[in-house]
Amino acid sequence: MSKPPSVQNVSATPAALRVDWTNGAVSEFAGLWLRDNRPDDRDPHSGQRLIDVTDLPEDPRIRSAVARDGVVVIEWEGESQRTSFDLVWLLEHAADRARQRPELATRLWLEGAAVDAPRDLAWTTLAEAQSDAAARLAWLTRLLQDGIAFVSSVPCNEAAILEAMALIGRIAETNYGLVFDVRSVPQPENLAYSDFGLGLHTDNPYREPVPGFQALHVLVASPAGGESLFADGFAIAERLRAIEPDAFSRLTQTPVPFLYRSKDAELYAERPLIQLSARGDVTAVHYNSRSIAPLRLSASDTRPYYAAYRRFGALLRDARFQLQLKLDGGSVVVFDNQRILHGRKGYSSARYPRHLRGCYLTRDSVYGETALLRRRLAREAQQ
Amino acid sequence: MSKPPSVQNVSATPAALRVDWTNGAVSEFAGLWLRDNRPDDRDPHSGQRLIDVTDLPEDPRIRSAVARDGVVVIEWEGESQRTSFDLVWLLEHAADRARQRPELATRLWLEGAAVDAPRDLAWTTLAEAQSDAAARLAWLTRLLQDGIAFVSSVPCNEAAILEAMALIGRIAETNYGLVFDVRSVPQPENLAYSDFGLGLHTDNPYREPVPGFQALHVLVASPAGGESLFADGFAIAERLRAIEPDAFSRLTQTPVPFLYRSKDAELYAERPLIQLSARGDVTAVHYNSRSIAPLRLSASDTRPYYAAYRRFGALLRDARFQLQLKLDGGSVVVFDNQRILHGRKGYSSARYPRHLRGCYLTRDSVYGETALLRRRLAREAQQ
Repeated sequence: MSKPPSVQNVSATPAALRVDWTNGAVSEFAGLWLRDNRPDDRDPHSGQRLIDVTDLPEDPRIRSAVARDGVVVIEWEGESQRTSFDLVWLLEHAADRARQRPELATRLWLEGAAVDAPRDLAWTTLAEAQSDAAARLAWLTRLLQDGIAFVSSVPCNEAAILEAMALIGRIAETNYGLVFDVRSVPQPENLAYSDFGLGLHTDNPYREPVPGFQALHVLVASPAGGESLFADGFAIAERLRAIEPDAFSRLTQTPVPFLYRSKDAELYAERPLIQLSARGDVTAVHYNSRSIAPLRLSASDTRPYYAAYRRFGALLRDARFQLQLKLDGGSVVVFDNQRILHGRKGYSSARYPRHLRGCYLTRDSVYGETALLRRRLAREAQQ
Repeated sequence: MSKPPSVQNVSATPAALRVDWTNGAVSEFAGLWLRDNRPDDRDPHSGQRLIDVTDLPEDPRIRSAVARDGVVVIEWEGESQRTSFDLVWLLEHAADRARQRPELATRLWLEGAAVDAPRDLAWTTLAEAQSDAAARLAWLTRLLQDGIAFVSSVPCNEAAILEAMALIGRIAETNYGLVFDVRSVPQPENLAYSDFGLGLHTDNPYREPVPGFQALHVLVASPAGGESLFADGFAIAERLRAIEPDAFSRLTQTPVPFLYRSKDAELYAERPLIQLSARGDVTAVHYNSRSIAPLRLSASDTRPYYAAYRRFGALLRDARFQLQLKLDGGSVVVFDNQRILHGRKGYSSARYPRHLRGCYLTRDSVYGETALLRRRLAREAQQ
């Protein structure tokens, strides 16, 4: 990161503090916001805030602000206590969050067929990820930006995926256990455990939480068939928003019932196929026709909903948007299961066995590992 | 459940099937919906759908519909194959979902101070929950409807909470481990581990997923202070929507950065204080002033946002809305951490020790346990 700018000038009105930085940038901080973020109201050890919003004065007013020795000292009207804010801290909280947390700068990729996975996506080897923290941080950051990344040279034994995932995040155990084996079995309780090709989908939308990340370790690759398919669901959802805004809105507003029922489990959840944040950003895509229970739609909503759903399904089947690749034995693919859709071509287990071992990771553990590693490397770089 | 009605009459237009039931109810099923739910397109073993929406005809038209022997047989225009739908299945899918899944019928409670926990909320003993499946199902259903329920007579040893939770759901392990101990420690990394009183809050909004359910087992109760506080966040959010709709909307639309930073963890997530479903229902409340990082607000949004936040904070401090109770040693409280806020009065650990052991449960595992148990008891009742 480049050297931070320093302060050119500090001035204040009763309502706000203004800082002019030496690089020409200007930041404004509302008095109310400053009062809420007084360092004195934080527990020195945990950093947690000791007051609630109802403890704040309703209209704190700044009497004066003076910069000196890397801090700005604020005096408040009607209060005897002053507050010092660290200028580096102010700069950080004025900056774009993606500057502080590069993993939040999502990079969408639409034309999956044009993606050359070894060239365009992040790869590491298990040995490199274990021994080189900087390489691991770079790989994790790109996993979070692109939604998908790969590890090669992972030993083809059944415990290796857990060893590899210890570098990336925390396993989310489910009713399937810590890991699940994707291979053909008679009378599968899930069609994943068959020879069928599987269209692009996300896993377990009937679960709450929906698995955050998924890892699949190729223990035995099939020499014929079984190619992996991936697509960026956020990019395809944005494409739908651009070309068919009404269909897009309908898919964001209609809860879909998802159901998984087996001897030992009954999981049910309702969520829209495309989920938006409070600000209208796409935050999740859930697409799994296998586990959609009968939709609950009024008579008048039925046709337009199906039309929108069909439109989205057709985009997902568009070969231009699909990254297709053959993963070798010893490869692990890790992807954001609420963003990246995955699928496979059919194969014949009678002719060639195929065996993938998978697991799910909690979302916060992968982001947390990335943030922790970045902090550690930054601290080591300062020493 | 009362005996299901049977069919009075079946009729069809090309676009829809109409069923008149003997109890006077009428159900309409769109032809497109029926075609999407053909039993023939489901895998007989897993029950999963074998086709995608893009495999459906765009405009399937019903030629005729005839009811006989508990099924309705539909012939389609331009297709030689008929489809049989089980009438009980149709009835189930026409009915309100809460009839099938009583745990989805949420019961809000606003006036917490008027709630008498032993009288108004569900209690069981560990022994009863272990030996009486029907009592356990009733307890679980009320836990999900009310958001909170209690278990008494749980042995006061450190392993007991895990034994009790095996009846209720699956533990979600976090960076705190499988369980966490709430008691005073020097230099706590989290203010929960201090003598401080804690205002009503939800846990870990910086986590993704936010813990679904929380259980707290009282191992050592303090004879003075440390009373538990609870409130129904959904009810209070609805109250805010009723009295201050603009404040309510602002709290649903502004993402709030939550941060937890310790030696071994760095967790960051953005979410609104009140989270709505695609249909505008309140689906989660996240309130934890201790872990709100500096808000990112434009100059013009700062004052109105704080005003809305303050309004919500004031409702949470309103004693009328707070259920206050003193939990004895051996009690476990289980609650929905995305709905029920919890807190405590301060206490003096120097005078009296206080020790709670807590854990988090995944949301789907608690709903899944309830659904599975209901299915098992229904099956046993039929035999």
